[in-house]
Amino acid sequence: MNENLKVFSAGANNALTKEICDHLGIPLSQLDISRFSNDNLFVQVKESVREKDVFVVQSLTQPASDNIMALMLTLDALRSASARRITAVIPYYSYARSDKKDAPRISIAGRLIADLLKTAGADRVLTMDLHADSVHGFFSMPVDHLTAIPTICDYFACRLDLSQMVAVATDAGGAKRVGRFANRLDIPMAFIDKRRISDSDVEQGLVVGKVKGKDAIVFDDEISTGSTLITTVHTLKKAGVGKIYVGATHPVLCGNAVANLKTTDVTKIVVSNTVHISEDKLFPKLKVLSIASLFSRAILRVHTGESVSALFK
Amino acid sequence: MNENLKVFSAGANNALTKEICDHLGIPLSQLDISRFSNDNLFVQVKESVREKDVFVVQSLTQPASDNIMALMLTLDALRSASARRITAVIPYYSYARSDKKDAPRISIAGRLIADLLKTAGADRVLTMDLHADSVHGFFSMPVDHLTAIPTICDYFACRLDLSQMVAVATDAGGAKRVGRFANRLDIPMAFIDKRRISDSDVEQGLVVGKVKGKDAIVFDDEISTGSTLITTVHTLKKAGVGKIYVGATHPVLCGNAVANLKTTDVTKIVVSNTVHISEDKLFPKLKVLSIASLFSRAILRVHTGESVSALFK
Amino acid sequence: MNENLKVFSAGANNALTKEICDHLGIPLSQLDISRFSNDNLFVQVKESVREKDVFVVQSLTQPASDNIMALMLTLDALRSASARRITAVIPYYSYARSDKKDAPRISIAGRLIADLLKTAGADRVLTMDLHADSVHGFFSMPVDHLTAIPTICDYFACRLDLSQMVAVATDAGGAKRVGRFANRLDIPMAFIDKRRISDSDVEQGLVVGKVKGKDAIVFDDEISTGSTLITTVHTLKKAGVGKIYVGATHPVLCGNAVANLKTTDVTKIVVSNTVHISEDKLFPKLKVLSIASLFSRAILRVHTGESVSALFK
Amino acid sequence: MNENLKVFSAGANNALTKEICDHLGIPLSQLDISRFSNDNLFVQVKESVREKDVFVVQSLTQPASDNIMALMLTLDALRSASARRITAVIPYYSYARSDKKDAPRISIAGRLIADLLKTAGADRVLTMDLHADSVHGFFSMPVDHLTAIPTICDYFACRLDLSQMVAVATDAGGAKRVGRFANRLDIPMAFIDKRRISDSDVEQGLVVGKVKGKDAIVFDDEISTGSTLITTVHTLKKAGVGKIYVGATHPVLCGNAVANLKTTDVTKIVVSNTVHISEDKLFPKLKVLSIASLFSRAILRVHTGESVSALFK
Amino acid sequence: MNENLKVFSAGANNALTKEICDHLGIPLSQLDISRFSNDNLFVQVKESVREKDVFVVQSLTQPASDNIMALMLTLDALRSASARRITAVIPYYSYARSDKKDAPRISIAGRLIADLLKTAGADRVLTMDLHADSVHGFFSMPVDHLTAIPTICDYFACRLDLSQMVAVATDAGGAKRVGRFANRLDIPMAFIDKRRISDSDVEQGLVVGKVKGKDAIVFDDEISTGSTLITTVHTLKKAGVGKIYVGATHPVLCGNAVANLKTTDVTKIVVSNTVHISEDKLFPKLKVLSIASLFSRAILRVHTGESVSALFK
Amino acid sequence: MNENLKVFSAGANNALTKEICDHLGIPLSQLDISRFSNDNLFVQVKESVREKDVFVVQSLTQPASDNIMALMLTLDALRSASARRITAVIPYYSYARSDKKDAPRISIAGRLIADLLKTAGADRVLTMDLHADSVHGFFSMPVDHLTAIPTICDYFACRLDLSQMVAVATDAGGAKRVGRFANRLDIPMAFIDKRRISDSDVEQGLVVGKVKGKDAIVFDDEISTGSTLITTVHTLKKAGVGKIYVGATHPVLCGNAVANLKTTDVTKIVVSNTVHISEDKLFPKLKVLSIASLFSRAILRVHTGESVSALFK
Repeated sequence: MNENLKVFSAGANNALTKEICDHLGIPLSQLDISRFSNDNLFVQVKESVREKDVFVVQSLTQPASDNIMALMLTLDALRSASARRITAVIPYYSYARSDKKDAPRISIAGRLIADLLKTAGADRVLTMDLHADSVHGFFSMPVDHLTAIPTICDYFACRLDLSQMVAVATDAGGAKRVGRFANRLDIPMAFIDKRRISDSDVEQGLVVGKVKGKDAIVFDDEISTGSTLITTVHTLKKAGVGKIYVGATHPVLCGNAVANLKTTDVTKIVVSNTVHISEDKLFPKLKVLSIASLFSRAILRVHTGESVSALFK
Repeated sequence: MNENLKVFSAGANNALTKEICDHLGIPLSQLDISRFSNDNLFVQVKESVREKDVFVVQSLTQPASDNIMALMLTLDALRSASARRITAVIPYYSYARSDKKDAPRISIAGRLIADLLKTAGADRVLTMDLHADSVHGFFSMPVDHLTAIPTICDYFACRLDLSQMVAVATDAGGAKRVGRFANRLDIPMAFIDKRRISDSDVEQGLVVGKVKGKDAIVFDDEISTGSTLITTVHTLKKAGVGKIYVGATHPVLCGNAVANLKTTDVTKIVVSNTVHISEDKLFPKLKVLSIASLFSRAILRVHTGESVSALFK
Repeated sequence: MNENLKVFSAGANNALTKEICDHLGIPLSQLDISRFSNDNLFVQVKESVREKDVFVVQSLTQPASDNIMALMLTLDALRSASARRITAVIPYYSYARSDKKDAPRISIAGRLIADLLKTAGADRVLTMDLHADSVHGFFSMPVDHLTAIPTICDYFACRLDLSQMVAVATDAGGAKRVGRFANRLDIPMAFIDKRRISDSDVEQGLVVGKVKGKDAIVFDDEISTGSTLITTVHTLKKAGVGKIYVGATHPVLCGNAVANLKTTDVTKIVVSNTVHISEDKLFPKLKVLSIASLFSRAILRVHTGESVSALFK
Repeated sequence: MNENLKVFSAGANNALTKEICDHLGIPLSQLDISRFSNDNLFVQVKESVREKDVFVVQSLTQPASDNIMALMLTLDALRSASARRITAVIPYYSYARSDKKDAPRISIAGRLIADLLKTAGADRVLTMDLHADSVHGFFSMPVDHLTAIPTICDYFACRLDLSQMVAVATDAGGAKRVGRFANRLDIPMAFIDKRRISDSDVEQGLVVGKVKGKDAIVFDDEISTGSTLITTVHTLKKAGVGKIYVGATHPVLCGNAVANLKTTDVTKIVVSNTVHISEDKLFPKLKVLSIASLFSRAILRVHTGESVSALFK
Repeated sequence: MNENLKVFSAGANNALTKEICDHLGIPLSQLDISRFSNDNLFVQVKESVREKDVFVVQSLTQPASDNIMALMLTLDALRSASARRITAVIPYYSYARSDKKDAPRISIAGRLIADLLKTAGADRVLTMDLHADSVHGFFSMPVDHLTAIPTICDYFACRLDLSQMVAVATDAGGAKRVGRFANRLDIPMAFIDKRRISDSDVEQGLVVGKVKGKDAIVFDDEISTGSTLITTVHTLKKAGVGKIYVGATHPVLCGNAVANLKTTDVTKIVVSNTVHISEDKLFPKLKVLSIASLFSRAILRVHTGESVSALFK
Repeated sequence: MNENLKVFSAGANNALTKEICDHLGIPLSQLDISRFSNDNLFVQVKESVREKDVFVVQSLTQPASDNIMALMLTLDALRSASARRITAVIPYYSYARSDKKDAPRISIAGRLIADLLKTAGADRVLTMDLHADSVHGFFSMPVDHLTAIPTICDYFACRLDLSQMVAVATDAGGAKRVGRFANRLDIPMAFIDKRRISDSDVEQGLVVGKVKGKDAIVFDDEISTGSTLITTVHTLKKAGVGKIYVGATHPVLCGNAVANLKTTDVTKIVVSNTVHISEDKLFPKLKVLSIASLFSRAILRVHTGESVSALFK
């Protein structure tokens, strides 16, 4: 059944892609990515893909520009090598954060990258937990949009007493997303009214919603430098919260994120492996849940033409 | 300066378009929209538009399908009549609400309509207060995205004592938008945790944020049947709120909206005229602020090549 | 063989679509079309269509704008749900009548709708008796263009004495079409020189061709209000025609069409079911021939990759 | 005013183009068209066209393939040479005759050529008397569609007694077109029922409409080999017609057309110069009316952004 | 395996296409190409191609414009007849010579034709020995680029003593191509410094590289009028070369090529049959190697989804 | 005249862009390029560009992926900010080197990047000395292709005795380019037959053309690591060449290029400033000629619609 299925890694998620292939019971297909002396990238697909159903896994993580270019060169090489269908599997579509025009004369880069991927040869996209739901609409090709919310919620639901738990968003814009976590866990929610953080006199108004005396899980889509998270923890502690947990899909963990998170007063940080975390960045409080199985099942369903939404029923 | 500028109404906003033309000091350009006996629409542009800079005003209001088709036939007629540039002015882009795929196998119609408008001949779009910011990214042409938030806020700021006022969102998804109103008015915010409305025992958890003993302004992007608003008012009253005001850009006011709003316990409802409200629907508590001047200034700036973002500095 | 074949109705031809499915021996696939309170349409495909060969049946009948929008939302939903191929089956493509620019600054809407359908996701079109042959060329995708002419002609050929029969076009523009009916029935033809209808003195010149003392079949592509038909009947009677029959593919039957046709002096009106006729509109002189079998055979041939033109040999 | 206007001939209508330029008071712009030894065409634009408004005149006459290729190479050269706007002026768009699919598996070449011209760089088209009105809809760019019908009709109206004149179409498909001539001249009409020509016994049914004892003007869009015309003349004579005149826009005059027309029993043949007629093909009965002035006025109006439809009021 | 494979000739390579079909063990599929009296081409595909994998063979040889138009009409007819995939097999893509802009305001026709073929319906291209490698990049669809270099080299390698042989390019621009021949034959190379040909005094500088006392094979991509070749032979003879052989893929052989080549002082001219050579043009020194087998294997691999590059390992 | 002209630098050529602006007598327009913590780039145009004629200067130099992404984000921001026309000025289009498919399953990245730039919003391109002439044809928009060959040749012509000079290409593929330098300087040429470099026994065959006892100028399009150049110098010295000069347009100078070139036995290396060379990389033998004036004149001509090819007459 899977003989026409080929899965490549364009470099950013080699370990995850290998894990996906293991779930699928197929070998990881081979690709060479190198660099000319003038710093131009060069991609060569190392096996015939004619009439194959090809998936290329690539999160748009650091170095982001190189990873995007590598993905696009790979898509173009696959297309001109006559692949039957090419799916860009982008576990972390970082540019989804550039989803609006909140300043004059900027690019809505989330849309631009979607258009570029199409130009480069992608027929479909498989991604996870886009920063905003409507980023889905930036793509002019079919998108299967997976979520790690059940995976992360289930982890907490199996291990914590939720009766005194509140779900917390780090700002008003995150309230909608946190509502989904809260809904699945059936717990109340709150959010931080960020505007007031700089206004020290009215800190009692800082947290919108009842959190005093409760434990909290702070949910976000990604953890980048961790500074938002650290501010949130600080604010919640001041507001009388007990234990604090964190759940997020994308562990970007850049800058001093790891150093800061190690020392901040949280009990557990639960993330997925959409972004590769090198060995030296791991630390005990950080729990990484693999979404390889979920992606492999989605890839198989796309390949065989079965419903992907059925995965989330 | 304005001799090459032409402004048409495609039928849904005749009064607003006339008002815009008055601000611009130009006559309303003429268009005939009729219907063949087989129910097909027929549009004829009644004056030469060759090499003109043309703006067509059309909110996607009831009857929405007819209004969209009339807009598209107009755009196509203008293009084939050799207009130099065609801007679709859509004060209320209703399909922006279909901005995500929250159920399997549905259309992200906000994106589809954006693509259809381009196919039909629109070169640019001028719109107001899209349901989500990222809907901007659905368009593959330049969009100028105006907002009535300052207009509505200024109305309240000049008339109310804001010291005990709280800005309220009708659900978690609206928290971000309400944050903008709250920010401009410099007041705290709260939101309704909709999930729990059906769960009568825990109504004390219904409102996230402190509202007791305060007055409230409920902000939303549109008022449709008004049922969400009425539930919100009911909930806020139970939570101990005093006077309640409402601010929203788009007065869709369909179904029994007017009847219900007349009798609900709100002091004032402030909306704009992006959606035409017929005389018989007006009632004393409803204040309609005209955005004609704002649109006319934006149209003039687009026409003459001046910054539109400067309008909001 | 048909396991990958799915046929949907987008609302305008539910009965016809059911009949087509019965011919194909497959169940009618399920679709929900509803309306938001702001009058926007909402379409949800209720079963997985991944990698399926999908046909959506929708005539562009009253309410035409809603039916076009429903069709486009359905096409877009199917595409983003990863249907392998999507064929828009449009038994009555009403906008084919807008096929030329016979007045300044109008839209050739037959072309515009063709482009919109492509933008919305149609891969092919299956239609019947377009108003003009060249409307076929408005589509940038493959079109299978069926005809009910043989069906209608055969009905008459089996029941009438054709030896004194003449085929009549309602105006010069219809002469070409009527030539095809006449050719198949091997009878002479005539047409009404419409220009002169208002010119009562020269009524003897009104009918071009010999009709006196003959019976006549008036052929047209559609019957809309019926007024053209009634004028034609009146003119033919004055010119000495005996019995008058009518044959047309599309029974649009709008306005007072039914009331007028009931009382007009024709013996039989033969139409197809490309347009749904509600029970209350049926009357004894009206004979409706089903083209369900023809469409089902065409769909099957498109699905299995067999020649559709062979159907008409 | 005309300093930014440039008019080129791509080879098929050199004399007409020169005449158009004289009307416009501008020099004919220079272009070199040559042929490599491998039979490939080579086009070089001989003067700068940056930011100019460029018109290229080319009828798709014999040698049709070379003329189409020369036009497309010219369009591409102009585009890459940064012309501001490029209008393909095609007085005779011969492929308009391939406007439908009346046999299985053929190309609707009238549409294909329209798409190719767009790909090659045309921004607009200016043409005359397309074989069918709806061919206009094959173009995805603005088209100005001129007509020589008034020019030809006026010629006859000034010189003939129309009181006993009938307008005749050479077949049913031409009835619509002839209706326009007849309407302008206010004379009755008739057509030849071609089907029966091979059926010698029923020749009395051959002409549909009253022609006996009258004079006739046979109208068509083009005269190609002239064989249809000669058959028509023969049939009309048998039906008792007196003098016969001919009016047609496009004098294709291929094969033995000239020899045959010289000897056929017609009094006058009136055509335009959309197709170049070499000196040696001219003969006394053939009257060529120049449409250069009409094209020059249309070009000027397109260039200056004035209404073209106003030319026909 | 091959039941869904169909191979057509669009007229320029009938014999080659027949030979390809024989290798594939399938009948040559039937196509009618004719010409209307107005010189327009007409193409009808004579057998059903629904869901078939179709290949159309057509070199862009004299008459080049007709052959290109015939190819495009065929592609369009196949597309609208619902072929599953259409590959344009163009053994000699003549316009590849127009691959750059070495004069102002010309068309890079090699790119234009590539775009036109896509517009006309080609999904892929299979071609041979393009004038420049980078012409491959002019196509926006997958291209399989075959080469006759091994075929031609092997012919010489089996028959000649290569120890005193030098490979010669007719100008500096051909040095790269000749390098490939030289590399495969493992012989040294030289080229003619064309600039100096008109400068009779310095003829000793004419040949760059050592050729005196050696035999030479002059390699080029095509032989057109043969004049370049004859000049090259003359120059080499003056420079002291012994026997001269010629190898080229495309035998365009136009003008007086055959007459001149017969009498020029070369021992053997080896070409392929990408361009059809009529019987009367054959002469003893001309050896034509068939590339039918190579094309048939490439077509089969494209059809079955196997690697085409493996053909050249 | 220049009030509507704006020139931006996207970061790779700040000094060159400043110099261009000085020539044009306009200020350098302002752009902010920054980086989010997740490594995504962010571009904001700092001044209104509505209806302006905008040029963005960006060579695709190291870091190439970041520079390409920055250019594309800038183009998209400018487009959505309603620039009237956007020209990507790319002095060094590095990916032009990926101009063919000389290995299976690779991307012709020179074409891909051209398509991506169009998707991102470029209306035209202004570039210099593309690696191969036909890369021009990769772009589907107008390209003005400048050359530094006259600039570099003139430098040598004014300073050196050319009577014993030979122009040398570093391999057969460069012979064509070197022919242009040689032609302008009116000197003979030679090239290195690279194949044989590894074959030490036949070094006498290494240089094709007469070089013994002469001085040489080695011409190339770019100097990257310098290793090809050093091998060439070594080979030429062995072949008895006297002084060696080097001319190249693009000083990529990566890796140990500078260190190696300083010590290699060449008298002068002449390059342009299409690639920015930092102060610390400059050394006495390296002469950098500015092409700012040439680019400024080209930009002005594009802006005002004058012939750019006239610059090279």
